Amino acid sequence: MFKPEDNFLVGRFQFADFRTAWAFMTEVAFEAEAQQHHPNWENVYNQVVIKLTTHDAGNTVTEKDYALAAAIVKMAQKYLKV
Amino acid sequence: MFKPEDNFLVGRFQFADFRTAWAFMTEVAFEAEAQQHHPNWENVYNQVVIKLTTHDAGNTVTEKDYALAAAIVKMAQKYLKV
Amino acid sequence: MFKPEDNFLVGRFQFADFRTAWAFMTEVAFEAEAQQHHPNWENVYNQVVIKLTTHDAGNTVTEKDYALAAAIVKMAQKYLKV
Amino acid sequence: MFKPEDNFLVGRFQFADFRTAWAFMTEVAFEAEAQQHHPNWENVYNQVVIKLTTHDAGNTVTEKDYALAAAIVKMAQKYLKV
Repeated sequence: MFKPEDNFLVGRFQFADFRTAWAFMTEVAFEAEAQQHHPNWENVYNQVVIKLTTHDAGNTVTEKDYALAAAIVKMAQKYLKV
Repeated sequence: MFKPEDNFLVGRFQFADFRTAWAFMTEVAFEAEAQQHHPNWENVYNQVVIKLTTHDAGNTVTEKDYALAAAIVKMAQKYLKV
Repeated sequence: MFKPEDNFLVGRFQFADFRTAWAFMTEVAFEAEAQQHHPNWENVYNQVVIKLTTHDAGNTVTEKDYALAAAIVKMAQKYLKV
Repeated sequence: MFKPEDNFLVGRFQFADFRTAWAFMTEVAFEAEAQQHHPNWENVYNQVVIKLTTHDAGNTVTEKDYALAAAIVKMAQKYLKV
């Protein structure tokens, strides 16, 4: 669900409604804090675009981005299922 | 998942971890606001106890509580599945 | 704090940290749901950019956007104070 | 704002409304995750009761509880100010 685009690893998600998108983002927020690696993300209604890059590595995609992307994809499953 | 206990309709939920419990509660919070009917609820780690009663009806269980309980049970499904 | 930019009313906010930004966004999320008017917004760490437009009015800025912007500015005060 | 009661350190908070209480709780949730020390807490509308105890120390109040209580009191300030 994540693909490299320029210097970002980009994931695009669409959920049933705004609340589901928000609950998903809240769970991702905990993971971002735990990893101290915060996404550049956008939301409008049921859509979420997550762009990952490593600021400390000159805004390139690193292992940290792949690790967070993997965690996000796993979390997204339950929100996408309904 | 909800049962009458004294003057409350009580639901008890257990999730995979705190974050999942919190994401679930966040989605419930939106519904509570939408219905302007707020639960009396408790959380510790992955456990959530939700007690519903209608203050304006002398703290008895009313249709409003059954409606919110039904919405909560539906929302809980995806969080419990994992 | 909001200014017209192209066909959006745009607000830019910077908070103490990610958690504060997230708590602010959570409160805004409730207002967006209550008004059934959802922002196009972006977050990275402690920064939040909120872009308001009215989809049903051909993506132009309307009274609905000014109303939501006013509510957001009011909510933002306590998060910006610290 | 926190006082010892039985084997808990208990804090009681009252906010302007449900949304403010929820935003506060969301910020506390991040701190609880960061410390891996989760409160036993209750909410109804604008009221929040937080009970801290250390499970691993036979449910007695320890330094971990005082540390989390101090962080919570600091966070609560901005939500209580309005």
